[in-house]
Amino acid sequence: MIAASCRVRVRYAETDQMGVVYYANYFVWFEIGRTELLRQLGGTYKDLEAEGIFLPAIDASCHYAQAGRYDDELEIRTEGLLLSPVRLQFDYAVVRVVDGATLATGRTVHAALNPRGRPCRLPDRVRNALVS
Amino acid sequence: MIAASCRVRVRYAETDQMGVVYYANYFVWFEIGRTELLRQLGGTYKDLEAEGIFLPAIDASCHYAQAGRYDDELEIRTEGLLLSPVRLQFDYAVVRVVDGATLATGRTVHAALNPRGRPCRLPDRVRNALVS
Amino acid sequence: MIAASCRVRVRYAETDQMGVVYYANYFVWFEIGRTELLRQLGGTYKDLEAEGIFLPAIDASCHYAQAGRYDDELEIRTEGLLLSPVRLQFDYAVVRVVDGATLATGRTVHAALNPRGRPCRLPDRVRNALVS
Amino acid sequence: MIAASCRVRVRYAETDQMGVVYYANYFVWFEIGRTELLRQLGGTYKDLEAEGIFLPAIDASCHYAQAGRYDDELEIRTEGLLLSPVRLQFDYAVVRVVDGATLATGRTVHAALNPRGRPCRLPDRVRNALVS
Repeated sequence: MIAASCRVRVRYAETDQMGVVYYANYFVWFEIGRTELLRQLGGTYKDLEAEGIFLPAIDASCHYAQAGRYDDELEIRTEGLLLSPVRLQFDYAVVRVVDGATLATGRTVHAALNPRGRPCRLPDRVRNALVS
Repeated sequence: MIAASCRVRVRYAETDQMGVVYYANYFVWFEIGRTELLRQLGGTYKDLEAEGIFLPAIDASCHYAQAGRYDDELEIRTEGLLLSPVRLQFDYAVVRVVDGATLATGRTVHAALNPRGRPCRLPDRVRNALVS
Repeated sequence: MIAASCRVRVRYAETDQMGVVYYANYFVWFEIGRTELLRQLGGTYKDLEAEGIFLPAIDASCHYAQAGRYDDELEIRTEGLLLSPVRLQFDYAVVRVVDGATLATGRTVHAALNPRGRPCRLPDRVRNALVS
Repeated sequence: MIAASCRVRVRYAETDQMGVVYYANYFVWFEIGRTELLRQLGGTYKDLEAEGIFLPAIDASCHYAQAGRYDDELEIRTEGLLLSPVRLQFDYAVVRVVDGATLATGRTVHAALNPRGRPCRLPDRVRNALVS
């Protein structure tokens, strides 16, 4: 399994009137996490789309343990796993840098689709790197 | 179980460069769905917060079946369920109005917290309405 | 000049920790306003894009008079004006329905571009309707 | 005048179906820019709010010169200016790192308000740093 790590700082736009991060924004950070993981494999997600391979989410979930707050520095830890030649899974942990507390964990599953929306095989560099 | 329905039209802001709705936005629509369900119970979520009761999400998930697209009219169907005196569950379906296709289904679980972040009992009107 | 009106209800996702609507979201509502105005002219913005005409913003501004709050029902009033055969202007007012207070006013200017990013003439139905 | 610079990478969530950054998101980046500028002055915007000083936007504008695209690395350059003891202005440029192209320029004006929404003087450290 391949792991990647990147950091974000909570934006004011990402808070809500409860004074914490709005729950849907964790899924935006998950996207940043998997983008960075794919970048480590030697080709960006942008490159994948240029090759005609799209990775829409088919399942997404998040468990919220503690609230993220404005201006918190957070680490997004991401692991990738090949479920099949046409399907990927990513697991995420959102960790507050200052004290190492895990704010949330999550998972997304993605289908590899061609521009016509049909399943297509992932490139070798991705499949080989993410095989369990 | 209590059910509610409301409609949204997909905003341009909610699309991404894949030409479809960005996956995190379904969770925003889920929030609209549960807001409308609570409104039906005779008090808005806004009222709940004014009473000092907050409902942060502790779990959220979505299964994506078909892509939503810009300007689609969508129906958000929401069902609520009391899991305990201090915990609620909502189940959602996002249905495309023009053909009745289900684009996504999801679930969120929420804790009832007081302003100090401690669990607190939901008001009778909510508990009685959402009991299974 | 052509005018249109539509309503939105403030989403929890649109608030920030100041307890009011995050300022960038007014531009999302402006987009809804001009979408509805174009719909009145007998063809949606979606149709325009299908015809190969895109309307990216080249200027956008907003003046904030009063804060919008969660669950407020708001009316977006939009006026359109043809600045040239390849350029459009929209003026907006965001009005709180309960008391008629104007929360914000704004303006956006858009270029009509073809898929290669070159200026292109707007369709007659749009130009004729929006001529001053 | 005080200047600050910070970088963002365009998120997939920030694109729209035109394949470019959705126009409202530049205002989110402007917020990141002024947050970093305030951080340089020896106290964060988070600290300001903790002191009971809020800086809601009263005017915001953006001119779009070129489109930002997914995964672009962008530099947000921000300058701050004290307009009065209770009013601040920030000017922004969004520059694409790879070639130095300016994608957008903008300005926001902010009132300093206390928790009751009344104008209040900015702290000395901010006023002294931002005086023209």
